Amino acid sequence: MFLQRFHDDTVAQTSYLIGCETTGLAIVVDPNRDTERYLRAAERRHLTIAFVTETHIHADFVSGARDLARQSGGTLVLSGEGGADWQYKFAAADGARVVHDGDRVDVGDVRIDIRHTPGHTPEHICFMVTDRATNAHPIGMCTGDFIFVGDVGRPDLLERAGNVRGSMDRLARQLYGSIRATDALPDYLQIWPGHGAGSACGKSLGAMPSTTLGYERFANWAFQIQNEESFVRTVLDGQPEVPAYFAEMKRINRDGPPAAPIAGHVPELDLAALQRATATGAVMVDVRPAAAFAIAHVPASLNIPLGGSFARWAGSLLPYDRPLVLLADDHGQVLRAAHEFALIGLDHVGGWSGPAVQLQWARDIQPLETVKQIDVTALADSPGVTVIDVRAASEWNEGHLPQATHGFLGDLVALTADLAPDTPIAVHCQGGGRSAIAASLLQAHGFTNVANVTGGYRAWEAQGLPVVCANEAKKSNRS
Amino acid sequence: MFLQRFHDDTVAQTSYLIGCETTGLAIVVDPNRDTERYLRAAERRHLTIAFVTETHIHADFVSGARDLARQSGGTLVLSGEGGADWQYKFAAADGARVVHDGDRVDVGDVRIDIRHTPGHTPEHICFMVTDRATNAHPIGMCTGDFIFVGDVGRPDLLERAGNVRGSMDRLARQLYGSIRATDALPDYLQIWPGHGAGSACGKSLGAMPSTTLGYERFANWAFQIQNEESFVRTVLDGQPEVPAYFAEMKRINRDGPPAAPIAGHVPELDLAALQRATATGAVMVDVRPAAAFAIAHVPASLNIPLGGSFARWAGSLLPYDRPLVLLADDHGQVLRAAHEFALIGLDHVGGWSGPAVQLQWARDIQPLETVKQIDVTALADSPGVTVIDVRAASEWNEGHLPQATHGFLGDLVALTADLAPDTPIAVHCQGGGRSAIAASLLQAHGFTNVANVTGGYRAWEAQGLPVVCANEAKKSNRS
Amino acid sequence: MFLQRFHDDTVAQTSYLIGCETTGLAIVVDPNRDTERYLRAAERRHLTIAFVTETHIHADFVSGARDLARQSGGTLVLSGEGGADWQYKFAAADGARVVHDGDRVDVGDVRIDIRHTPGHTPEHICFMVTDRATNAHPIGMCTGDFIFVGDVGRPDLLERAGNVRGSMDRLARQLYGSIRATDALPDYLQIWPGHGAGSACGKSLGAMPSTTLGYERFANWAFQIQNEESFVRTVLDGQPEVPAYFAEMKRINRDGPPAAPIAGHVPELDLAALQRATATGAVMVDVRPAAAFAIAHVPASLNIPLGGSFARWAGSLLPYDRPLVLLADDHGQVLRAAHEFALIGLDHVGGWSGPAVQLQWARDIQPLETVKQIDVTALADSPGVTVIDVRAASEWNEGHLPQATHGFLGDLVALTADLAPDTPIAVHCQGGGRSAIAASLLQAHGFTNVANVTGGYRAWEAQGLPVVCANEAKKSNRS
Amino acid sequence: MFLQRFHDDTVAQTSYLIGCETTGLAIVVDPNRDTERYLRAAERRHLTIAFVTETHIHADFVSGARDLARQSGGTLVLSGEGGADWQYKFAAADGARVVHDGDRVDVGDVRIDIRHTPGHTPEHICFMVTDRATNAHPIGMCTGDFIFVGDVGRPDLLERAGNVRGSMDRLARQLYGSIRATDALPDYLQIWPGHGAGSACGKSLGAMPSTTLGYERFANWAFQIQNEESFVRTVLDGQPEVPAYFAEMKRINRDGPPAAPIAGHVPELDLAALQRATATGAVMVDVRPAAAFAIAHVPASLNIPLGGSFARWAGSLLPYDRPLVLLADDHGQVLRAAHEFALIGLDHVGGWSGPAVQLQWARDIQPLETVKQIDVTALADSPGVTVIDVRAASEWNEGHLPQATHGFLGDLVALTADLAPDTPIAVHCQGGGRSAIAASLLQAHGFTNVANVTGGYRAWEAQGLPVVCANEAKKSNRS
Repeated sequence: MFLQRFHDDTVAQTSYLIGCETTGLAIVVDPNRDTERYLRAAERRHLTIAFVTETHIHADFVSGARDLARQSGGTLVLSGEGGADWQYKFAAADGARVVHDGDRVDVGDVRIDIRHTPGHTPEHICFMVTDRATNAHPIGMCTGDFIFVGDVGRPDLLERAGNVRGSMDRLARQLYGSIRATDALPDYLQIWPGHGAGSACGKSLGAMPSTTLGYERFANWAFQIQNEESFVRTVLDGQPEVPAYFAEMKRINRDGPPAAPIAGHVPELDLAALQRATATGAVMVDVRPAAAFAIAHVPASLNIPLGGSFARWAGSLLPYDRPLVLLADDHGQVLRAAHEFALIGLDHVGGWSGPAVQLQWARDIQPLETVKQIDVTALADSPGVTVIDVRAASEWNEGHLPQATHGFLGDLVALTADLAPDTPIAVHCQGGGRSAIAASLLQAHGFTNVANVTGGYRAWEAQGLPVVCANEAKKSNRS
Repeated sequence: MFLQRFHDDTVAQTSYLIGCETTGLAIVVDPNRDTERYLRAAERRHLTIAFVTETHIHADFVSGARDLARQSGGTLVLSGEGGADWQYKFAAADGARVVHDGDRVDVGDVRIDIRHTPGHTPEHICFMVTDRATNAHPIGMCTGDFIFVGDVGRPDLLERAGNVRGSMDRLARQLYGSIRATDALPDYLQIWPGHGAGSACGKSLGAMPSTTLGYERFANWAFQIQNEESFVRTVLDGQPEVPAYFAEMKRINRDGPPAAPIAGHVPELDLAALQRATATGAVMVDVRPAAAFAIAHVPASLNIPLGGSFARWAGSLLPYDRPLVLLADDHGQVLRAAHEFALIGLDHVGGWSGPAVQLQWARDIQPLETVKQIDVTALADSPGVTVIDVRAASEWNEGHLPQATHGFLGDLVALTADLAPDTPIAVHCQGGGRSAIAASLLQAHGFTNVANVTGGYRAWEAQGLPVVCANEAKKSNRS
Repeated sequence: MFLQRFHDDTVAQTSYLIGCETTGLAIVVDPNRDTERYLRAAERRHLTIAFVTETHIHADFVSGARDLARQSGGTLVLSGEGGADWQYKFAAADGARVVHDGDRVDVGDVRIDIRHTPGHTPEHICFMVTDRATNAHPIGMCTGDFIFVGDVGRPDLLERAGNVRGSMDRLARQLYGSIRATDALPDYLQIWPGHGAGSACGKSLGAMPSTTLGYERFANWAFQIQNEESFVRTVLDGQPEVPAYFAEMKRINRDGPPAAPIAGHVPELDLAALQRATATGAVMVDVRPAAAFAIAHVPASLNIPLGGSFARWAGSLLPYDRPLVLLADDHGQVLRAAHEFALIGLDHVGGWSGPAVQLQWARDIQPLETVKQIDVTALADSPGVTVIDVRAASEWNEGHLPQATHGFLGDLVALTADLAPDTPIAVHCQGGGRSAIAASLLQAHGFTNVANVTGGYRAWEAQGLPVVCANEAKKSNRS
Repeated sequence: MFLQRFHDDTVAQTSYLIGCETTGLAIVVDPNRDTERYLRAAERRHLTIAFVTETHIHADFVSGARDLARQSGGTLVLSGEGGADWQYKFAAADGARVVHDGDRVDVGDVRIDIRHTPGHTPEHICFMVTDRATNAHPIGMCTGDFIFVGDVGRPDLLERAGNVRGSMDRLARQLYGSIRATDALPDYLQIWPGHGAGSACGKSLGAMPSTTLGYERFANWAFQIQNEESFVRTVLDGQPEVPAYFAEMKRINRDGPPAAPIAGHVPELDLAALQRATATGAVMVDVRPAAAFAIAHVPASLNIPLGGSFARWAGSLLPYDRPLVLLADDHGQVLRAAHEFALIGLDHVGGWSGPAVQLQWARDIQPLETVKQIDVTALADSPGVTVIDVRAASEWNEGHLPQATHGFLGDLVALTADLAPDTPIAVHCQGGGRSAIAASLLQAHGFTNVANVTGGYRAWEAQGLPVVCANEAKKSNRS
């Protein structure tokens, strides 16, 4: 048996290629739109992609399963669980094999048993993998958004992103049941999850590529709670607010994701063209490093720096119904940004401008803006400042500054709508990455006195400054 | 905690980069000479390589630990176990930290506990990894050549490759002790081994990238035997004969591996230059696919096709004290071959020739040779043929053709020394890869009536032809 | 003024990017389908492609002008000369600017004067380039297929490829007139031609990238003849027979070339699939080096080795109405072959097979074939052999073997139709490249006793063996 | 005959590979340290580099001739003209063939005639190329720094860069003689020069890759003057001041250039390390685009933006005896900068810092600085400002602002030494590129009121603002 893991840093998402070396057949689990990677890997190993599947209807990226099935000639394998509302609408048209709990897919000598594991979503399935060439016992499980390293898939997305009233409680109970159903599974079972650290599909995913059921049984909070009511309360508590684009992704992935766009040309815009674009509604996205943006940037532009969480925050903060224009150091950054936008379906980038246009803006239109930087010791001595902690709720609950209020980055605009524009605001996160985006967001929305706290909560703690833990019980569990 | 796995297909060898994301420090375990990969990966993750270590003195490739420590500025961490004969001779000169059982290396929040696990070698150590940011319990172990997926590191190398009389029995008993010492370790512990399928450091390594202790407890034959004497017998039984170059590697890696050569120019040789080279002792190595070689090749050349096991067989069959000249389809193949040669210290390639020179050879010197192909049904009807099974002894013991004799590829020249040159010989392996090398080897040594059995033992079995199992007990254990 | 030359080795074709550095505008002359190159070059120089043009309706490759105009947003500039039959049919639909003799296109400060230069084709135009920023005098001329280094564009293509009866003589006279019209142009004028050595659009093109009018006046045979009748006789004499695909290219390029295909996947075929393909009409093309093919190949396959003239001979010898399957050493060769096929519109490649399938063919279907190699001294001693010289007629006229008959490679099948299949045949060319293709072609058509003369005419001459010159007068002119 | 041109944008320098296709031999003329390019090109064409030569002892880049001769095995061919002071000191040690006027080098059928053409330097030679396979007449000439497109090599370098008193006048007269000696050469002769636009080895080189002697006879000012005294006056008039590093290059290239350094690792520096470096004498070079630097930069850093003239200004403005540290947007810029530094022998780069360190500098050390931008209309209304035109003297002489003083960028520090630090200064050049460097230079030297004139002289002229022409006669000649 052969297993290869593909991790896409930008959506913190993991796909798997599992092959039978005897027969040369393979299956791909949870592909994204960058299908070239799977095709190349299979070719290198002389494997034929016989099946393409996914654990559930993804909410955080555009599925590549349809594209890959077409390109490879493999058969789509899609969940038929979850009820009428959660059936893949393109299953019949694409000739997919629709599977249910207990079904089995044989990929040569590799046996894949389908386990229905509702919770994160109603239709969610896992793939229990047995290397029959070696052994009759399962070796591992592709758990998608059911079990992560250190976490489980959140059951509240449908209600919070999709407005399915009441689904949150029902799915949390199903998730509890799905976890309980793993009691019979052995400690040694490897867990191959669908996401790693940085994903918004759970609370606190770890950075390790894989884990084991036994390790999760004591290291994962979700396995520690033996009471359904208590579990439901806990799992629904402290989930980060839902990125705005998840509802759109759900719809696309259920109804039928379009083919990935051909990587195209992003035209360079001069000052006049850039102004025309913004005058007609385009959003300016500055993809340079946060430090470069803080030093100087075009007013009203939003800073989402290229890097690990680029696609996540782009999807959360950018509109799907307005064109985007990029501000960048150079064309290389533009190409990377456009590639990552494509993974989450932000297919329309109208152009970009570089430093020369930014300088002209400064000379001809209005001064560039900076982002004020404040360190934690200065912050501690600034009593009149409104301190906003933009981290996820789970992080806030682990501990926060006494003077801070919580305002998750994804909801920051709404949460600060009532503040006067000249309110002195300091934003912070864990280490300074997200607060940089937050500061740019607030400035873009008219706040004139915003500071970014360098080093964030981590620096605050490192200085021994006082913190408040909303959830002491959980905190002690984890330390 | 961050973990990245690097697998080099050609020596079937695995290295690990383990980092602490909080402090940005990292350690590299078991690097080979392709040090660029680790440096780039660390840079991408903003990790500083603070330590470079290895589990033991490798026998199957040139260690890259010295090179990497120099290039990265990290501290070498080397085993001080195993007695006077197995101390790294360059440890002091390189400022290495010499560690023993029970020692501990802190890589930021990642704790590495040293466990002395003699067996494969006297000085062998494992690295128990605890992600202290998450949990006080270990999450996994870098086991080097102690535990593999489905196997353990063979304890007979020193005796067989290094001529250390009596060490085989002693190390087998130590290995048993090392395995027993894992009884206290939990099922869920991840095992990150130093080799995958294709390595000669064990009998039957699996292709999965990692495993768990619990799964190995029943899936790995070595954990099933609870009696020392029985274990010793079994582990020493059925090990493949030792590749000839292992002794050289051991010596190099203990005494101090030289810096990797700069990737250099391999000159193209015309017919006259090729003849001059061979006249003065150069060995002709044809690196084309086995099928191309079988169709036609320069007489007396040895066929080691580029691909998964290229370096292994190159190291086993090629001399370290004579120049090599390559026969290839094109320059691209030559560059790949030279790169892989460098991993095992075959640093002297004198040139190469392409198809035009091969054709001139045919016209001007002597006819090219073919390798006769025979399929299993034809073989079954050829009673007078000497059938040689060139697979590893372990494979032979699992089952073999009734009419075959066993002659491991690495020892084939010696084993066939007494046969008359015109003996009709058919060589086979499992699927046809190694037997192609074997056929070329026999022809290069003067045998004039050699056939390669296409499809090998796998095809023989698939036809339902009769087989003999030398070791029925073990076979039933594994099915 | 900025000028960049793009030479494509495989169709021996040259394109030009000419830009005005002051205004940032540029024009591309004679682009082929690999439009990416021009777009990238313009981007690197911060040039906007304002115009895309071509000197004439090309016969030897698919024009990239339409694709490039669409991709760059530049305006198509197309010849309106040549009469009703030679108007671009897509000019209006594509919004092209149709130009005539004396027209002028201003690319910023670079002035382009259109000169109608009929001869090679009726509609042929040249682009006289003046760098007005420097000087009011022209600096050079893009001559397309009018003037080459050492040659002029042949006027017989329409009659020979397009069956336009009587056009050959008329165009030759027009060509004479076009040459005479250069009398007034200065010696120092740089000549930037549309083809280099290896093209079939003329007799004897040189390898230098550019030349001057003054140098051509004495170094180019066509400028030496001051009498129209004599010129007509000479220019129509000794032109190579026309590659079969030229008629198809003419039609495509006049009526509207389709967009270049996306570089696609070429599936690997096993033996059964390869046989099915050939059984249903696919032509097997072996793209390996001629030497590899000569050593052994699948019977009935045609050898067109990758390299300098690959596309030319592929276009000449392969059908446009049957699928092609490739035989290759590896996948890299397949990708290169498919790319070059695309340049000449051979867009349908059904798959490929590698050495393993070739070896299976040998074992299961029929023996592989070789191509017999014979050197010139052996040839001199083989009185009974039919010696066929497959070079162009112009080469033949320069000198040939006394015992040879001329049979241009592109017409070889027809020319040998009457020979008995077992006729002993030796084919030769200048150095051995084309005769290798010829030998494969004859064998594929059933000849059983074919030899390739290694070294060709060059080796024959080098041995001092006797030659015959059909055209002593011309020869002495050139030496 | 085969000819390939290699142009390096950064030193505006051109090398040539000239080969004989019949014999496969080749010569490389004027290689720089990026020798890989020539080796690869020769390999692709199956050419053996038999000779490596150069036209003269270069002053503007480190010669790659020694490196290339060693790497290729070719023979060095070096000028023996010019007298005792200008002999290559390593000629004997490297086994070079020392050539004189009238000597001849046969590269297969390509004949190279050596012509001594003193003027730019005493030892300067040209290579007259005859393609004997075609014709007994020369086809072109590698003219090095003798004849450029539109200019000739300046004769004043030795006196101005090397302090060879009186040499300027003598060499100007020799240059006149060398030009006169071309009277006998034909108009059609192609000229393949050693530099293109952007080089400091002449006054006003054109951007065309090549030219002809006939075109130069009227388009090149130097051929228009038929009187020695007048020529001497003119050629010595209006030459740009000499880049400071030329003297160092001359010495290195005459005495023996060292082997090019291996492309190495440039460490990233944190704020503390960057401060330590500058405290011990390192010069901070900001290689970002001028616009990014103008927006904000670390005080005292010098801005030399990557791009066309990077190496030229780096060599002119950076010290050879102090370490350099880079400020950049990202690591990619650092690698490019280090590569181009190597071409001119600036081999010691101690590290680099990115935007995060720049932002920390702003927060912890001192505010970042901007570069004030002023457009030409504002400049016209600023009577109290000291306007410095940093262009070359030749440009100044063509026309300049009435209120400007001339201060060539390479001498700007010395020329402004007497100004008060708070003098309001506006610097301009032709289009804004060099003045950006100038502004950074002045600010780094303590001037506190510096503005960069955007658009430069070109924008001033475009607005129809008044200009002064120092040299009306010459100007009218050229329009």
